[in-house]
Amino acid sequence: MPALLPSEKAFIPFVSVENMMRLVHHVGIETMLIGLTEAVEADFRRWDLFDKTPRVASHSLDGVIELMPTSDGAVYSFKYVNGHPKNMAQGLQTVTAFGLLAEVSTGYPVLLTEMTLLTALRTAATSAMAARHLAPAKARCLALIGNGAQAEFQALAMKAVLGIEEVRLYDIDPKATEKTMRNLANMGLRLVPCASAQAAIEGADIITTCTADKQFATILTDNMVGAGVHINAIGGDCPGKTELHRDILLRADTFVEYPPQTRIEGEIQQMDPDYPVTELWQVVSGRAQGRRSEAQITLFDSVGFAIEDFSALRYVREKLVGTDYFQKLDIIADPDDPRDLFGMLQRAG
Amino acid sequence: MPALLPSEKAFIPFVSVENMMRLVHHVGIETMLIGLTEAVEADFRRWDLFDKTPRVASHSLDGVIELMPTSDGAVYSFKYVNGHPKNMAQGLQTVTAFGLLAEVSTGYPVLLTEMTLLTALRTAATSAMAARHLAPAKARCLALIGNGAQAEFQALAMKAVLGIEEVRLYDIDPKATEKTMRNLANMGLRLVPCASAQAAIEGADIITTCTADKQFATILTDNMVGAGVHINAIGGDCPGKTELHRDILLRADTFVEYPPQTRIEGEIQQMDPDYPVTELWQVVSGRAQGRRSEAQITLFDSVGFAIEDFSALRYVREKLVGTDYFQKLDIIADPDDPRDLFGMLQRAG
Repeated sequence: MPALLPSEKAFIPFVSVENMMRLVHHVGIETMLIGLTEAVEADFRRWDLFDKTPRVASHSLDGVIELMPTSDGAVYSFKYVNGHPKNMAQGLQTVTAFGLLAEVSTGYPVLLTEMTLLTALRTAATSAMAARHLAPAKARCLALIGNGAQAEFQALAMKAVLGIEEVRLYDIDPKATEKTMRNLANMGLRLVPCASAQAAIEGADIITTCTADKQFATILTDNMVGAGVHINAIGGDCPGKTELHRDILLRADTFVEYPPQTRIEGEIQQMDPDYPVTELWQVVSGRAQGRRSEAQITLFDSVGFAIEDFSALRYVREKLVGTDYFQKLDIIADPDDPRDLFGMLQRAG
Repeated sequence: MPALLPSEKAFIPFVSVENMMRLVHHVGIETMLIGLTEAVEADFRRWDLFDKTPRVASHSLDGVIELMPTSDGAVYSFKYVNGHPKNMAQGLQTVTAFGLLAEVSTGYPVLLTEMTLLTALRTAATSAMAARHLAPAKARCLALIGNGAQAEFQALAMKAVLGIEEVRLYDIDPKATEKTMRNLANMGLRLVPCASAQAAIEGADIITTCTADKQFATILTDNMVGAGVHINAIGGDCPGKTELHRDILLRADTFVEYPPQTRIEGEIQQMDPDYPVTELWQVVSGRAQGRRSEAQITLFDSVGFAIEDFSALRYVREKLVGTDYFQKLDIIADPDDPRDLFGMLQRAG
């Protein structure tokens, strides 16, 4: 039997960290954040079409490993992502991720990519998309509480998508704020380092909390939060991990991605199981109201959902066309006769 | 800031299809099947320790895409696997797979590998392990109903682990039987092609059904199955897909991997939800009896479970040591300062 070359379908494009960085610079980071915001919003508009399931989490003392699958009936995606707050002390990333797209009709993968960077980008894009529907009109000032790996991405997405001009920064570790200030210098943002969370949120239209402790924490208390702000809470994203005092939730209108997941993982894990929330996709698709008044406090209780990864993966796949920012991986066995897997193995001997 | 080289942890060993074939030939296929049987059995003995969950399936008209995670508390694994019976007509594999091992303590992946070949090997090893506990003593004759991609692996595992001498083959497509006969020639097995399933099971001690239709089928009817045989049913592995007439199940004692998954996917989906089954791990660990008498009909209603993949992945990781049967993939972003993901991206520009 002739040993034919494997078919094209047997080779899966793989985007390494290095190639993802090349792709981001090729597209331009702010352009990419705007593009991802549009991609996520387009998929939130057709939310009904997706297979949705809470992520499959494997918890341990040190952290969590999660699989986040979804499908729109034509394309399937999943992301592998971990969250290990103690990793930082060992010089490792708290969150690392990779993801995959596959054809639903054949089950064959069509893209494998790093998603540590891509998750940071899509999380910032999702925040910007939510803020577009929930933040006060003409929001110009962002408070960033928690200046870790997410901080710059959040600031740039809010600038690119909403026109944020000033970012007020606070972190319990001043070195984290210095790092963020350094990275955001000369990006067209007015940067104000602050000595406390309280000081950071003064005059802010949008407050973004992105801290990493895996525990119930109170980054914001009720007395700190004034009328009319939009809170974007992205750090509380697993059971036992929250950032806001529950009294804030009682005053705010809460918007979520996928309630069955957010009730377990989000800020609202502090509340009763029937605590009222609005699904963000309903706002995006015009079925529910976003911000109703200038005085309203809106809260996007964000935990990250599989559909956002799906959007980001499809965006990357599109942007790869015509570039060489990928390798081809021989990950699918492809015998000449599909029933002859053993023969393929035997002939390789 | 100096751009340090990424740490070792940022590069994940990846085993391509080509390298998996090299590894199999390096170890020797029968030696590997025996090694995998031991590895699976060792993990079945410590079944209690594992995080267990039914696989997460995304069904479509054409097939299914599944994620199969598990963990023993120190090591985490998952497999991506599809099942698309119509793929064969397009020259594609019905089942393709890849898998991953990660450290639970950090969430960092430590191995990514093709698993189309590895799944075929571990499925055959699991069948052999079950047969070792359930088949009649001194089983020498195997009937193989369904001569597709799994067939040769099943035959060789039963030979290597149990000492099977004769294999009787039947497939609705004679070309599949011819292919299997050709591949198993000169392997030390007496091969008997048969014109019907009925003819194939004459004199067989073990009957293995491995057909691929995604539908309720009746490959074996009750009158065909004599006293004392062990049935290894591996083709029925998703909702709506079975191979045996339910009357066989009424006469047999049924052994399963993980009941919550098998009741949805296995032969026993035809039976009442409380149809009695024995968990195979209890037999392996000495807590339940396997075969009780010469006349007993035993049935291993196998659907494939995540722990078997975990065992196979760990086996491969061990065998890779000291070889070059892998590439290193730059899949984990690894900034010098873990909080400085953005700085890493920026400096790459």
